[in-house]
Amino acid sequence: MSDAPRIIRKKTGNFLEDFKPGQTFRHKGGKTITEGLFTVFTDFSMATNPLCKNARYARAYGYEGLVCPPGLVMLVAFSQTVEDISENARANLEYIDMQYGAPVYVGDTIEVETKVLGVRTSSSRPNLGIVHVQSIARKNVGQADEAIAMAWQRKVQVYKDDESIEVESFQLDPDPVDCDLWLPAYDASVDYKGLAHLSSPDSYFEDLEPGTRIEHSRGRTVTDEHIALTGILDNTSQVHCNQFMIDLAPDRYVGGQLIIFGGIPFVLCLGISGPDVGDNSLGDLIYTTGKHTAPLQAGDTVFAATEVLGKEDHPEREDLGIVKTRLLGHKFVRDEGAEHDDAPAGWKKVTIFDLERALVVKRRSHYA
Amino acid sequence: MSDAPRIIRKKTGNFLEDFKPGQTFRHKGGKTITEGLFTVFTDFSMATNPLCKNARYARAYGYEGLVCPPGLVMLVAFSQTVEDISENARANLEYIDMQYGAPVYVGDTIEVETKVLGVRTSSSRPNLGIVHVQSIARKNVGQADEAIAMAWQRKVQVYKDDESIEVESFQLDPDPVDCDLWLPAYDASVDYKGLAHLSSPDSYFEDLEPGTRIEHSRGRTVTDEHIALTGILDNTSQVHCNQFMIDLAPDRYVGGQLIIFGGIPFVLCLGISGPDVGDNSLGDLIYTTGKHTAPLQAGDTVFAATEVLGKEDHPEREDLGIVKTRLLGHKFVRDEGAEHDDAPAGWKKVTIFDLERALVVKRRSHYA
Amino acid sequence: MSDAPRIIRKKTGNFLEDFKPGQTFRHKGGKTITEGLFTVFTDFSMATNPLCKNARYARAYGYEGLVCPPGLVMLVAFSQTVEDISENARANLEYIDMQYGAPVYVGDTIEVETKVLGVRTSSSRPNLGIVHVQSIARKNVGQADEAIAMAWQRKVQVYKDDESIEVESFQLDPDPVDCDLWLPAYDASVDYKGLAHLSSPDSYFEDLEPGTRIEHSRGRTVTDEHIALTGILDNTSQVHCNQFMIDLAPDRYVGGQLIIFGGIPFVLCLGISGPDVGDNSLGDLIYTTGKHTAPLQAGDTVFAATEVLGKEDHPEREDLGIVKTRLLGHKFVRDEGAEHDDAPAGWKKVTIFDLERALVVKRRSHYA
Repeated sequence: MSDAPRIIRKKTGNFLEDFKPGQTFRHKGGKTITEGLFTVFTDFSMATNPLCKNARYARAYGYEGLVCPPGLVMLVAFSQTVEDISENARANLEYIDMQYGAPVYVGDTIEVETKVLGVRTSSSRPNLGIVHVQSIARKNVGQADEAIAMAWQRKVQVYKDDESIEVESFQLDPDPVDCDLWLPAYDASVDYKGLAHLSSPDSYFEDLEPGTRIEHSRGRTVTDEHIALTGILDNTSQVHCNQFMIDLAPDRYVGGQLIIFGGIPFVLCLGISGPDVGDNSLGDLIYTTGKHTAPLQAGDTVFAATEVLGKEDHPEREDLGIVKTRLLGHKFVRDEGAEHDDAPAGWKKVTIFDLERALVVKRRSHYA
Repeated sequence: MSDAPRIIRKKTGNFLEDFKPGQTFRHKGGKTITEGLFTVFTDFSMATNPLCKNARYARAYGYEGLVCPPGLVMLVAFSQTVEDISENARANLEYIDMQYGAPVYVGDTIEVETKVLGVRTSSSRPNLGIVHVQSIARKNVGQADEAIAMAWQRKVQVYKDDESIEVESFQLDPDPVDCDLWLPAYDASVDYKGLAHLSSPDSYFEDLEPGTRIEHSRGRTVTDEHIALTGILDNTSQVHCNQFMIDLAPDRYVGGQLIIFGGIPFVLCLGISGPDVGDNSLGDLIYTTGKHTAPLQAGDTVFAATEVLGKEDHPEREDLGIVKTRLLGHKFVRDEGAEHDDAPAGWKKVTIFDLERALVVKRRSHYA
Repeated sequence: MSDAPRIIRKKTGNFLEDFKPGQTFRHKGGKTITEGLFTVFTDFSMATNPLCKNARYARAYGYEGLVCPPGLVMLVAFSQTVEDISENARANLEYIDMQYGAPVYVGDTIEVETKVLGVRTSSSRPNLGIVHVQSIARKNVGQADEAIAMAWQRKVQVYKDDESIEVESFQLDPDPVDCDLWLPAYDASVDYKGLAHLSSPDSYFEDLEPGTRIEHSRGRTVTDEHIALTGILDNTSQVHCNQFMIDLAPDRYVGGQLIIFGGIPFVLCLGISGPDVGDNSLGDLIYTTGKHTAPLQAGDTVFAATEVLGKEDHPEREDLGIVKTRLLGHKFVRDEGAEHDDAPAGWKKVTIFDLERALVVKRRSHYA
């Protein structure tokens, strides 16, 4: 070949000016859930529900085997959309109406498509705009058990590639989505009580009281393992894994460090809340809204709390109820000399995550 | 919800005053061994026995497939007991009569129960006491292949929650346990010699000489990966994963750092000893006693040595023998200016682990 | 036992004086590819070809399931040879005629043997010499689907154990090897076009133009995760995992740090090139030559570029073509005050990896 080859610099991902009303992305790749991904992520997340830990328990309940916890389904599905939607994003602003459908098992393959619902530009920040999308994750496309596993909307702040291009705002309504949480039938012949010691004894529907806030006891320090964890999800956003890019412009990034993918604290908060809130859940129904309220970086320790907002009967199942909660994640940062009510002396509590979360929870009357 | 929800702070784990004579814990969770857990842990541990590496070798020997190495079985089983027994512990003092039973395969589910045998208080340290427990790990409870996979006792130093509570000492005898190492039959029709190149050539029963000490050649630096490795085992002890807790009281913890879960050097020492001692073993029979003698922290490099204490015929199998060893783990710490016989100049050797270990080892006469 | 046991210090691996002409090593261990290894390594490597991500895609193409990407096959096979060939090496000098054969799936067991082709001593460095070997990796030895998965030669610089021993140079010809890349048949009844959205749209045979150089957009910072990644491959070389050994003689090692196993940047470069070059490949045919040109250490960020050297028709398949490329890996190091054309101000680009790589690539005319 010649000494001076023609150089091709590929761009990946889309920029603000690329998003068109109603445009649909069928995302590349797809992802088969292996036992490797299942375990690395589920155990990292500190999830404790025996449905994702103990196959005999899961089978007794009517699942095919170990069940992917909601956080894993969410991250696999979400990450499929990153290249097309948010590879060139500044920040993920909001999760909206994130709903779960069919259970996801090891061996299932997730494929995702996303429709562009809106773009909103900002006169004050002409190089950025907000993209509003709706995504649907299906499992096992083209097979007998094809089903919707998840559906959600999100809003994300995306950079322009060429600031001189005028971008017009638009907004479409979201499509109706047929995504209902699959629940195993209650089977009176199953000895649920004989399995009850495997989940926490005080997180049944009867135990969760509206008007309470449960401070979950455990914390988890996140290390630079976050780079590999984000990679294992096929999340390609460079701000999570390319330190050289950050070294070139350290002022653009908090502390000149890689920023931890929001999905990491998302699943950690779900996991940390597990023993108190999720151990006797048969699934997360919907996250009506969710936000990352502060960034997380390697070395930070994640904590979580759950506010129980309300409870209601399940419309079709007397063995189950619906619990509406607010899941809050926080970390502590040094604040020398200061005193705050909600933090040890010299520290300040910073909320990093805020999720409206409805769960389907077993009633003790039927299961323990 | 109201602006001021009622706060619930959940305690996890038991404190010294909670342990009652003969009390039995059926631990939560249970754990199905996936290929993810199997590989991450087995390969981390540097285990080399082809039974846990090479499925065709394991099947030829009469196992169903890849066999979990003893260290993995031990850590999965042990970790199931952490929340109830040692979440609030200061230190694990001793492993006693740790016995292996049925082989554990990928897909098996481990569930554990623990009986409280004793509590011993100390007048000199009124906020602490020693709890003595006996645990049994079963695989595949309720299924046709249900079997005891492990049984052991341990002593652990546990904090009181309320120092003002008087705790009385007690001691029960351990229960007899029916836990015998399963061994595949010797099958003269199998071409064992045709597989012999896959294990080390000099670690047969005939090779291991009482009165020798084998300094295993390899070392392994442990990084902050230990946090994730401990988490993947569902070990919830905060001292291994919550740096913020340590930052609040750094003087309570060595070097103000997270302490590496003892199970990590335990399996590393087993693994490092593999090529010289374990490659031609069909299983570990019993660890009569074992102790962690110094803490390990991220950045330390683990080494190991094996003293061959004795050998004896296997009571029922002429193709096998029993080798009694002492497995020692060590690390080196800086000791500027000092000279020690057993360490490079300027360094001091520190024993971190000490285990009395009996293995069942193949005879070359039958296998190579 | 006595207070003063006899000490045995085992050596592992061979030294320059141990290699004899034509000597063959049947390497220990073997390795079954689990879903844990598959996922941890494949996803770490940033591989994007749906054949290794999406089981329904792989099956539609005629594979049995998820296909191990070439980098994983290579590293598993290569690492099997480390103890015997390069545990006591200073550096791996060259990969030669690395060819792929049968596809490797989860569940397959890889076993490797290596023949010594040559030794070359050096008068200027009497303590070192170059060992030239030829290795063959088979899958599922003794089973119905036994096949050659890979074959390659390499040259490696190995230390003498005893400098006073004279070593004579020798050189044998490599054996002919029957290692042909298995390709699934083109099946006109398969709806390939219906799957085309799952791979990148612009990396077909028609798209790759000789005389171009594609600068792949992504970078990946490697952390001390490299220690565990190398361990998961059963690569036992101490220079990758034993920091104490390096602390004893920091001047012998770059920066007094662990050196990252060359296999790590090797697979990362393959992965980073994926969306632009590998997404529509049915396999890597041969790496005629490859070299690591600079060491990599924790904290470095890996980038890659591909020069398209040439294209040719596939001799037997009109749906496929062969693309000859040069895959280059690089990193940037600080060079304060300097200006280089190919690096940001204050930085210098350092080539770390250089591989002549031929791929079999699908034609858009047949697949999209």
